[in-house]
This record gives sequence, C-alpha cells and structure tokens, in this order.
Amino acid sequence: MITVGIIGAGRIGKVHAGTIASHVQGATIKTIADPFMNAETEAWAKSLGVRHMTKDYKEIIQDSDIDAVLICSSTDTHSPISIEAIEAGKHVFCEKPIDHDVSKIKDVMEALKKHPVKYQVGFNRRFDHNYEAVEQAVRAGKIGAPHLILITSRDPEPPSIEYVKVSGGLFLDMMIHDFDMVRFLAGCDAVEVYAEGAVLVDKAIGEAGDVDTAVVTLKMENGAIAVIDNSRKAVYGYDQRVEVFGSKGMVQSANDSKSTAVISNENGVTGEVPLYFFLERYTEAYAKEVIQFCKAIENDMETPLGVDDGLKPVLMGLAAKKSLEEHRPVKISEIC
Amino acid sequence: MITVGIIGAGRIGKVHAGTIASHVQGATIKTIADPFMNAETEAWAKSLGVRHMTKDYKEIIQDSDIDAVLICSSTDTHSPISIEAIEAGKHVFCEKPIDHDVSKIKDVMEALKKHPVKYQVGFNRRFDHNYEAVEQAVRAGKIGAPHLILITSRDPEPPSIEYVKVSGGLFLDMMIHDFDMVRFLAGCDAVEVYAEGAVLVDKAIGEAGDVDTAVVTLKMENGAIAVIDNSRKAVYGYDQRVEVFGSKGMVQSANDSKSTAVISNENGVTGEVPLYFFLERYTEAYAKEVIQFCKAIENDMETPLGVDDGLKPVLMGLAAKKSLEEHRPVKISEIC
Amino acid sequence: MITVGIIGAGRIGKVHAGTIASHVQGATIKTIADPFMNAETEAWAKSLGVRHMTKDYKEIIQDSDIDAVLICSSTDTHSPISIEAIEAGKHVFCEKPIDHDVSKIKDVMEALKKHPVKYQVGFNRRFDHNYEAVEQAVRAGKIGAPHLILITSRDPEPPSIEYVKVSGGLFLDMMIHDFDMVRFLAGCDAVEVYAEGAVLVDKAIGEAGDVDTAVVTLKMENGAIAVIDNSRKAVYGYDQRVEVFGSKGMVQSANDSKSTAVISNENGVTGEVPLYFFLERYTEAYAKEVIQFCKAIENDMETPLGVDDGLKPVLMGLAAKKSLEEHRPVKISEIC
Amino acid sequence: MITVGIIGAGRIGKVHAGTIASHVQGATIKTIADPFMNAETEAWAKSLGVRHMTKDYKEIIQDSDIDAVLICSSTDTHSPISIEAIEAGKHVFCEKPIDHDVSKIKDVMEALKKHPVKYQVGFNRRFDHNYEAVEQAVRAGKIGAPHLILITSRDPEPPSIEYVKVSGGLFLDMMIHDFDMVRFLAGCDAVEVYAEGAVLVDKAIGEAGDVDTAVVTLKMENGAIAVIDNSRKAVYGYDQRVEVFGSKGMVQSANDSKSTAVISNENGVTGEVPLYFFLERYTEAYAKEVIQFCKAIENDMETPLGVDDGLKPVLMGLAAKKSLEEHRPVKISEIC
Repeated sequence: MITVGIIGAGRIGKVHAGTIASHVQGATIKTIADPFMNAETEAWAKSLGVRHMTKDYKEIIQDSDIDAVLICSSTDTHSPISIEAIEAGKHVFCEKPIDHDVSKIKDVMEALKKHPVKYQVGFNRRFDHNYEAVEQAVRAGKIGAPHLILITSRDPEPPSIEYVKVSGGLFLDMMIHDFDMVRFLAGCDAVEVYAEGAVLVDKAIGEAGDVDTAVVTLKMENGAIAVIDNSRKAVYGYDQRVEVFGSKGMVQSANDSKSTAVISNENGVTGEVPLYFFLERYTEAYAKEVIQFCKAIENDMETPLGVDDGLKPVLMGLAAKKSLEEHRPVKISEIC
Repeated sequence: MITVGIIGAGRIGKVHAGTIASHVQGATIKTIADPFMNAETEAWAKSLGVRHMTKDYKEIIQDSDIDAVLICSSTDTHSPISIEAIEAGKHVFCEKPIDHDVSKIKDVMEALKKHPVKYQVGFNRRFDHNYEAVEQAVRAGKIGAPHLILITSRDPEPPSIEYVKVSGGLFLDMMIHDFDMVRFLAGCDAVEVYAEGAVLVDKAIGEAGDVDTAVVTLKMENGAIAVIDNSRKAVYGYDQRVEVFGSKGMVQSANDSKSTAVISNENGVTGEVPLYFFLERYTEAYAKEVIQFCKAIENDMETPLGVDDGLKPVLMGLAAKKSLEEHRPVKISEIC
Repeated sequence: MITVGIIGAGRIGKVHAGTIASHVQGATIKTIADPFMNAETEAWAKSLGVRHMTKDYKEIIQDSDIDAVLICSSTDTHSPISIEAIEAGKHVFCEKPIDHDVSKIKDVMEALKKHPVKYQVGFNRRFDHNYEAVEQAVRAGKIGAPHLILITSRDPEPPSIEYVKVSGGLFLDMMIHDFDMVRFLAGCDAVEVYAEGAVLVDKAIGEAGDVDTAVVTLKMENGAIAVIDNSRKAVYGYDQRVEVFGSKGMVQSANDSKSTAVISNENGVTGEVPLYFFLERYTEAYAKEVIQFCKAIENDMETPLGVDDGLKPVLMGLAAKKSLEEHRPVKISEIC
Repeated sequence: MITVGIIGAGRIGKVHAGTIASHVQGATIKTIADPFMNAETEAWAKSLGVRHMTKDYKEIIQDSDIDAVLICSSTDTHSPISIEAIEAGKHVFCEKPIDHDVSKIKDVMEALKKHPVKYQVGFNRRFDHNYEAVEQAVRAGKIGAPHLILITSRDPEPPSIEYVKVSGGLFLDMMIHDFDMVRFLAGCDAVEVYAEGAVLVDKAIGEAGDVDTAVVTLKMENGAIAVIDNSRKAVYGYDQRVEVFGSKGMVQSANDSKSTAVISNENGVTGEVPLYFFLERYTEAYAKEVIQFCKAIENDMETPLGVDDGLKPVLMGLAAKKSLEEHRPVKISEIC
C-alpha cells in the first residue's frame, strides 16, 4: 500500500486526488496540503476519505509514513518542493513544468542522482487515447520513417492578462505540451527551432509582452520536420490534433466531442464542436498518468516520463522564445 | 460507327444525347424525335452536331441507317416503341420503367425472342461510382455472405400532384430504382415483400391515392433481409445511401456533396448538404450507362441490364403495392 | 443519505455498485446479496467499502435500514423480488426486463399502486451521450415531425446456445432495448409491428428455436414508421446507431471507438472499429441511470423510466414474436 | 466566336483542347502546334474536330484568324512565346510558371502594357470546388479575420531525376501552386518566408541539388501566419488539403476520393484513398479555368489570374529557395 501526500488542492490537485481515491486500489491519500485550505476544500477532502488537511506542505515532507508526493502547487514551487521531497526520500509526481529556469531543473536532477526515488513529470497528453493510438501506430512502423509531424493545439479562450504576465509566455506555458508531444511522436529530440509569433487575438496580450498566435518549425534528430501551431482562442473549442506523415503512410487524430450526433438540414450537415475544456478532453489521461506513477512505485519500474522529459520541452520553449526575439533559427544546443 | 436515333428530347433525352455527342467516339446521333420539337430544342440539337430533327419518332424507326434507338419519351410509350424498334431490328436503350403493366413487358420479351437485338433498360444507379464500389466489395467477398441490405432513398422535393396521379405510385415511380438496387447488391431476386406507407409530407399526395413515405422489407433468395426507406421530401437534399452487412463485415456508401469544405464555429462543425438534384448526383452514371450500351453493340456483348432486369423491379413494385393495400406480406410469385 | 442494498453481484451488479460507491455522494451500499457469493466477490465488495455480504437477498428486503434496492439478479427473479421489495417499502431499481410475462409485470404495477415507492427499470441506453443528443435534437424540434426512425443494433458475438434457450428469444432479450429506444426517440408508443427474422449467423440458434438476424417495422402513434435491424454477430464490433428523419431534417448518431486515430496508406484510410463490448460502450450510461435513480429518491421526483416503460417494450417484443410466428403485422393491442 | 490556337499538345495541352472542344460553345480550335507532332496526336486532334496541325507554333502566332493562344509548351518557352503572342495582339492563357526568371516575367508585363490583351496564368487549383468553397467561406467572413493558414500538398510520387534537375527545384516547381493558394486564401501577399527542407524520400533528389520534403512558414500582409508542407511522395495518393483558422472559426477542405464506400471489418473502418493523379483530382478545375479565360475574352472582363498573379508565387518561391540556402527568414522585398 502506497501512502500519498498531495501538495496543492487547486483544479489539478483535486483531479489527481480523485483518481487515487477512486481508481488506485494500492494507494491511499494520507494528507492534502494547500496554503489556502478552507472549509470547502476540507469537505471535498473528507468526501474522498482523506483525514489530514494542512496549510503547510512541510507536514507532508516530514511525515515518514508518506511514500509519495504529488506536487500540484504553483509553478514557482515545483522545483524547490521537488528537491525537498526527493531529499526526504519520497517518490515525486510533479506537475509540468518543473521550472522555467534550466539550472533549477538541473538541481532537481542532481538531487535525484543522490536519492534515486521515482520521479514523474505531468505531461498528461501522452496518456490520452488519441495520442496514444497515434504514437503506437508510429512505433509499430505503420507509417514508416516519420517525415513530417504536424501539431495543432488551440485553446478555447485566452487566460487572464494577469496570468499571461506570470506564465512564462506562450512557448513555456502553452506550447510546452506540444514540445513534449513532438518528442513523444518523433521518438527523438529536436535539434533546431524556428518561431513565428503574432498578436491577433488580444492586443493586451501583446502589451503584456507575449504573443497569442504562433507557429514553430522544428528539425528533429531523425531528420523529420515538425510544425506546431498554437492559438490562444479557437471559438469552436479546444482544438487538439496531430498528424504524422511518413514513408509508408500517415496517421492523424481528431478532436473528441460530446456526442456523435449529426444534424442534416438546409444549412448543412452539422456535428458537435470539440470538447471545450482541457479537463473534459483529458479526463482519462489525467487519471492514467497518476495510475502509471503508482504502478511504477509498486513494481519498482521507471516512470513513463522522467526528469529529463521535464527538461527537454523547457529547452525547446526557451529556444523558441530566443528564435522569436532574434528572428532566426536557434539550435537547442544554444540553450543551457 | 453506330448510328443512333433518340426518341424524346426531355431532360433525360438531352443528357443521353450529350453523352453520345461528347463521350462516345464510336457513335453518332443522326436523328432526334420529340412531339414537342421547337426552336430551342432544335438549336440545342444543332449545337451537338445533330442535323435531323422531327416530331415523328416513326422516322427513326423506319430509317435503315439507324442502328440503335434511345427511348426517352413518356413512360406509357416505352413498351410500344420498344417493340416497334425491336421489330425494325434496332438495338434499344429504354428508360425505366419499360411499363407498369407486366403483360406489356412480356410482349417486349417476346419481340426480343424473335429479333435478338441488344436491349438495355435505364437503371442508371448501377453505374454510380458509390454503388459500384459497394457492389464490387460485396462481389469480391469483402463482407462475406450478405445478411442485411439497407437502402435509403429520399427525394429533395415531391413532384407535382399532376405527376403523382399518373406516376404509378411511389413504389413504381420512385422505389423502383431501389428495387433494382436491392437486386444489384444482393446478387439475387426477392422472394417476398412487406410494405408500410404513410402520408406525412403532403396530404394532397394522399388524396391522389399515393403515399409519400414508405418502408419496404424484402426477403431475398439468398436469405438476406433487405429494407428500403423512401421519402418524397428530405429538406437537406437528395439522400441516397446504402449499407450491406454480412458475415465478414459491412460496406456503406454516403452522399456526394459539392465540396469537402467544413466550417467549425460555436454552432458546430458543418459540412455541405448532399447534392440536391438527381442529374447532378448521377451525372457520371447517366453517361456510363449509355457508353456501356454503345460498347455492348460495338463488341456484340450482353448489355449490363437486360429486359429481365426491367421486369423484376416492376414485379417487386406491384407486390409492394399489393402488400400495402392488403396489409400483409406478398410473395413476388403472386404477381404475374 | 440513502442506504442501498444490491441483489445480484454479477457483471451488471458490480457496475452499479461501483457507480454508487464512487459517484453518488448521497448514497451508501450497506449490503450486497448474491446466491453465489464467494471470496473473490467478497474481496471486491470490501474494496468498495461494503461490509455486509450475504447469499440471501431476503436479508436486504427485511433490513429496515435499507431505503433502496437494486435488482441485478437473474431475469426470472426480477418481478417477484420487485414485489417483495415494494411491499417492504423500498425504492426499486430493476434491471430490464421486469419479466417476459405481462401478467407478472402487471402484478408489479399493482404492488406499486398500493406502495408508491420509486421504481426504475434499467434501460441504460437512454442515458448514453449519443442517444441523449439525438433525442434532445428531436425534442427541440430540430428535425420537425419525425417521419422515419431507423435503429441499427448489432452485437459483436452471439451468446452461448444455453443462454439463447432461456433468453426469451432475440425480440425479448436483444431487441427489447431497441423497442425502448424507438419509444424514447419517437416520444410515443408503437401501434403495430411486423417482424422478419432469419438464421444466418449460426444454425444452432435456429435449432434452439430462435433467430439471429431480424428486421422489425413499426407504426408509431404519431404516424412515423420505425425500423429496427438486429444481428447477433457484427465482426467489426458492437454496432449501435440511430437515425431520425423528419419534416425539417435528420439527426443521426454513430458508434464510439477507442480513439480518433486514422491511418492512410496504399490500402485506404482506416479508422478504429466501434467499441466491442457493451460495458465499454455504455459505461457512462450505466453510471448515469443509477445516479438519476438516487436523485429521484433524494428529491422525491419521478424516476426517468417507470414500470410502464418496463411493460411497453415487452408488449412490443411479444407482438414481434407473434408477427414472426404468424407471418403478419400484429397490433400491440392484440397482446395483453 | 473566339478562334483559338494551342501551343503544346502534351498532357495539359490535350486537357485544355478537350475543354474547349466539348465545353466552350463560343470558342473553336483552329490550330494545334507541337514540335513532336505525330500521327497519334494528329488522330486525337481530328477526333476533336481540329483540322490544322503543325510542328511550328509560329503558324499560330502569325495567323490573323486566331484570337487567343493557349501556351502549354515547355516551361522555358512560356515567357518568350507569351511576348510573341501578346505582340501579335492575341489573348494569352499561359501555363504556370510564366518563368523562373523574374526579369523575363517583367518583360511579359512590359509587353502587356503596350498591347493590352487578356492574359491569364494557369493556377488551376483556384478553380477547384474544394478550394473555391474554402475561399468563399473566408471571403464571406465566416471565419472572421484569418490568423493561421495551413496548406498540405503532397505528390503521390516524385518525378524523374531528369525532371528534378531542370524543374527549378521543389519551391518553384511544386510549392509554387501552394504559394498561389496562400495568396488566394489570405486575400493578400506574403511579406516574409522561412523555409525548412530535407531529403527524406530519395537521396538522388538530394544529389540533384533539390529537397523532397519541405515546410515553409510565411508572414502575410494581414498579419496571418501561413504554413505549407510539401512531400514528393505520399504513398496513399495525392494529398491536397487546406485549413484557414480565424477569429470566428475555421474552414477546412479534405481530399476527394473515387467513392464514398467504407468497409468495416475486424481490421477497422476503411474508406478510399485520395484520388491519385492530379489530372483526376483537378479535372473540373482545369476545365473551369479555360472556360473563365474564354468568358473574359467574350465579355471583355479581367481574367481571374493576371500576369501579376504569375509573378508573385515566383518571388515567393525564390525567397523560399534563398531562405533554405541562407538558413534565415527572407523578405519578399529582397527578391527583385
């Protein structure tokens, strides 16, 4: 039986807690910590059968009963709490990104060298049924050698300007998922990045120093060319599609929607929009990543996404940022 | 070089004339006959390079230069003109149906026994790219033994009440195409028919003694069960689909539309309606059936659809009519 | 807080128990009864937090703590246990069908008149996201007045011959779900039924006195014509689709599959097969029906599917059976 | 009546001659010139009713009966013959590209200033039903302001290495169509281009100094970002799709295929591959562009694609080439 502590009871912390409570028989949540712990959150925790609640995450770190920690707190705390937990000998599931600062991720790596606990970073999309099916087709050789990888990833609505300002920018906040996806689908790392960006959705995003629309081209180690397009606002919903084209064929995934119902009338043949919200779209994926983390502990296996998988997309995001600023292709090796 | 005469210069006569003029190098149209021949029709004929026009179809029958006749005149003239043409030794392409009166079709059969010319009946849908692909899949054994055959066939708009009155009724006028399609897809004949009908589109159709909505169930010789549904009015256009389900799988066809463009917005994901008009939907099929007829003459082969293929759907239509009237399943063998 | 007893811990009993344990905060399972209770089932029950297990369902009936009973035992016990539970003043969720014997369903109705507890019958498909979307489109008037209702419902594999023999036959065992669906989509009852059936999948099914392939045509009270096609074996998976065609348009639903991945190569453009297993396809629907039952108790509302909704599909199934035997259309009013 | 001369009786010359012969009532072909004129080509020309054949295109230029010339000869002759024809006062339809040398296109422009005949360049895809529908949706404001334009354009097979060597390279030979398409869909010109290229299909293409796989990113005047991906070999056929994403929605087009037939079996749900050959895919578009050219002459209107529309994609192609060579984004204004 794995005893778990959860640090951060925001949106994603609640999702992960629910998964462990309902779907992981071999794990139990002992403590949930959140600096803003309130009556509502306590009631929710109780409904899951969790009995310890605290505002101080250190209670989790210091609790020798606790085997594993899920870090779902704000981004700036990911790397320091990771290190504390690792040094306390706890297995760690850390929400993405580990940090925007490469040296801090390297500090986490150093800690792991000394304390070889399980470490998993939360790139949930790898566990999505559609992307899994695409990746399996590529791995099984069904499309031959990959030549082109196209990723479309558009949010239904931009975040608040306050959030934009502290987000690290579109490349580190939003496209980071797609950088991970490119690695997942290509089965290798990127060598070079070229970024185009524009402010087309909301001028205030530009004034906050960010872009809201971007296209990034990547050269991959295996020779394939990848393209990611992002927009902060797709009025029809959360648009999440990929296409891998290779020497023997192509595999594509489409969006999920609420139902398969299609209405035909004088105006056309109309199906449902994509699921609007990322928690809806990736419900199953969020559950699967945490289940896999627990399995890795139980069976003493490698986690599906290690600290290196947390570092690489950050390097790609920083390279993209540099590319946009310097208006030229940037090698990943330029970032360190 | 085959010399052709065309009897009837209405909508479908014009289509067939155009096919021969543009797409059949081995055939030339000598004469076009139409009782309502006028300046406009003459101008059209000239544009195709046809030099003889007449109001009297007998000029075609009696012209020893003419090898083949296309009968595109009104339904009541199909069987008598067929017989005249056959007796004059001419190959005949006759629009569907040959007749609503079985004995008159049998007279055509008798004439053909004495004068073995080529005879083809105009069930154009067999030449449609979608149905051809479905039939080829069935013939190639891709779905195993057929168990269920589902045909949807809905018109965009009902014909005029005047036409309804003389049409022979929905089963002989509209569903007759689907009866042919069932035979085409099943690769065998029907044994028994059960018909349900309703007046849901326009009361005036009911007052004219017909139905506008119908579902017919058929038992086929090979054991399969077939279902045809018809409506006189599908607001979204001409709806023409089939599905064959068998021991090893299923094959389905969908509608054609003007383009593959799909628009996604808050209201949904919307593609184009099916092509609205039967001449649009079956343009290619109309051309192919006439090209095949010419080839059959040129190479002295059997036509793809003989007089028997003209008779069978009429028997099925009459059985369906009887089934609706007597409110019971009717065997095809009851009709004679 | 509703206290629940579950009678029958087979496949579907387990599903419902899981739903209450994980998804219904206002309900708790006190006891699970199963005549074949064993160590494995006990372990499963414990994992859900259930502490009482018994082989004797009477312990549930007689337990005054228990407010509501879920009857998931074998079909022949549905009506007698329903009556016992009703008479003990317990709310009842009863798996379909209540009984194959109309008089026994009427006994349940009588019991409910005397003891007006909540009663719900388990036609799960009404809670499926695809059918719900279709039904909502129809109810919202998006397709106008319904003219044609087409239901395709094909199993991936036939049940064992032993099961076939006691199943009540295809019309009561399998098509009963589609009879409920017709009522759901049409928003009214059927007036008359005509059934065609065939043995095309497995001769042994025919020898057991049943058919494995069937097409049923129904006249509905609102004038619409409905068609249901069933097969015991679709090699490509569980095929569950509906289409409602009306005066203003058409609404259709398609199958769900494991992913949206599509592979294009020389052989074609290939997507995934439909989900194979009914528990996979209707996971969400099974949960939703039980959640709704609990809500109806909590808020003292009507259940979404009462005893009458349990009776009607049985009448339709018996009429279909009679139609097949007597080879003629049968009015629902002939069954009583 | 327009009298037409056709220069070049290769694949595309034959297509255009067929269009004029069969579909343009107001035009007649007087002469067809081809340096490799042979018996077969003469027979073909006769079958269209054309009576003059020659090896010397000057006979067409010097024939005062001829109003309009279609230049379908080899690429290197497009600009000189254009100028000769223009100076002879003939309307010109010139296959793409006018030239790979910008100064020669400018010479054609100069000639047109002095002799204001009609001039149309053969970017056929603008006349394709799918692209037309996409463009009309954009023009009608259905997707709001365009933010992203994605064009996928992949050939089924690479051309011969001999052809590759003289083709001008992928950007001028193949992607030139997509450069035109970007302008068509965006409704404005490109400002800057960044090109990635790779040799993944066939090393011999690389040895010939070209790439076979490429991704080009473009900044458009209206702020939109466009991406074009090209491959010389898609094993599943000719892959031609576009997507325009904007502030109010998205419009996409898909490939055309031979039929809508879809087969479901244990292996999946399989539809047909895209049409394989560009003449199949764009049959209708080739006809429509020539019909439009004839209409422009007849009604003294502007042609839908003038000499400027011939120049711009060449500038974009040269910029892309330079970008690949210099490994940096290149402004269109750098090319002159």
